[in-house]
Amino acid sequence: MQTRRRSFFASLQFVRRMSAVRALVPIAHGSEEIEFACIADTLRRAGMHVTVAALTDCKHVDPKTDHDPSFKFLEPRIVTMSRLVRVVADTTFDHVLAEDEHFDIICLPGGARGAENFRDSEKFVPFLKSHMSRGGWTAALCASPAVVLAHHGLLSEHSKATSHPSVSSKLPNQEFVDHRVVVDGKLITSRGPGTSLEFALEIVRRLVGVDTAENIKNAMLVRE
Amino acid sequence: MQTRRRSFFASLQFVRRMSAVRALVPIAHGSEEIEFACIADTLRRAGMHVTVAALTDCKHVDPKTDHDPSFKFLEPRIVTMSRLVRVVADTTFDHVLAEDEHFDIICLPGGARGAENFRDSEKFVPFLKSHMSRGGWTAALCASPAVVLAHHGLLSEHSKATSHPSVSSKLPNQEFVDHRVVVDGKLITSRGPGTSLEFALEIVRRLVGVDTAENIKNAMLVRE
Ligand SMILES: [Cu+]
Repeated sequence: MQTRRRSFFASLQFVRRMSAVRALVPIAHGSEEIEFACIADTLRRAGMHVTVAALTDCKHVDPKTDHDPSFKFLEPRIVTMSRLVRVVADTTFDHVLAEDEHFDIICLPGGARGAENFRDSEKFVPFLKSHMSRGGWTAALCASPAVVLAHHGLLSEHSKATSHPSVSSKLPNQEFVDHRVVVDGKLITSRGPGTSLEFALEIVRRLVGVDTAENIKNAMLVRE
Repeated sequence: MQTRRRSFFASLQFVRRMSAVRALVPIAHGSEEIEFACIADTLRRAGMHVTVAALTDCKHVDPKTDHDPSFKFLEPRIVTMSRLVRVVADTTFDHVLAEDEHFDIICLPGGARGAENFRDSEKFVPFLKSHMSRGGWTAALCASPAVVLAHHGLLSEHSKATSHPSVSSKLPNQEFVDHRVVVDGKLITSRGPGTSLEFALEIVRRLVGVDTAENIKNAMLVRE
């Protein structure tokens, strides 16, 4: 009996591990490194299964930053972020597509050029649209709510959302643009590097739990 | 005359560019990715010349995270951070040593294992000590003030400093541990991911200027 009970709990734990919330964090040339790090790090602290996927069809590339010859020999997972921090993604977005992977949430960091690369990717945009039409969660930060979601008609005039002040006038609904983090159904939006931790903690609060978010917030010394 | 004046201003601009504040941001296996990104990104926004240098003599390595075979073919600049974000540093710390480079400020991100790797690096510790004894600025975040600076006797009982709550009891002076950012002479210390932007902005305020810091703070949407 004792053994059977133990193995029952062991398998429960196994199921829980297998059923960790799955998040896709795409990154593109010019994505904001602070915003990206805040998302990936905080979600992993919360036990979420995070896949960082590099877009390989970036149309907006700064020749000053992309043609460092010392990176030529490296590989498609390496992404040059907005302030020249270089990140090795876990995988490419092409690989995500090839594996037909699905996620509970797609989280878009900002960065002006990074958001333009999301917006103009013929691979990523249809994937995002079908994720949203299936009822998946979407979180977008800084330039991305305006430049990606609003541009592709993924926000209505009833959608409550915010974005970076430099682009927030493009949102169809201006009522919530001054808020630091806005939740509307399965959509979470926020404003910039300085709101990234609040944004990431809101994702944790909604998809993992309030207590987990509170513990991480305290360990990270995030302000009340 | 016109030409001469123009070339005078051109050379002034050249001098200014050459005289940008130079910052070294070392990273090691287990460094905190949010803290690192906040430092590198913010300092670059302020026009500082930032060198991200990977330590290659890390003694504390998590076998779970370091033996991803897909990274084996890559190179010594790639660092696996505390929550598995992988960063390609600009250079290795060995290269910094070989070039005999000097910096206006050394900025240490935290992360428990990353700080241990700084602490136990036979290459980095003498470099840090001679930088400090020459009167260079030092900034340390999260675990690093306690685990690196206090451990090596680089903080006295008169030093005003803080560190992450999990290790701050190791600081010789406990008077300032509850502050989010502490400045004492040429030493700037802070507490964790949630205080990283305030910390980075304080570095900008002291080494570049109050106005630059204020502009960046507003553009980043950092809270008052
Ligand atoms: Cu930390």
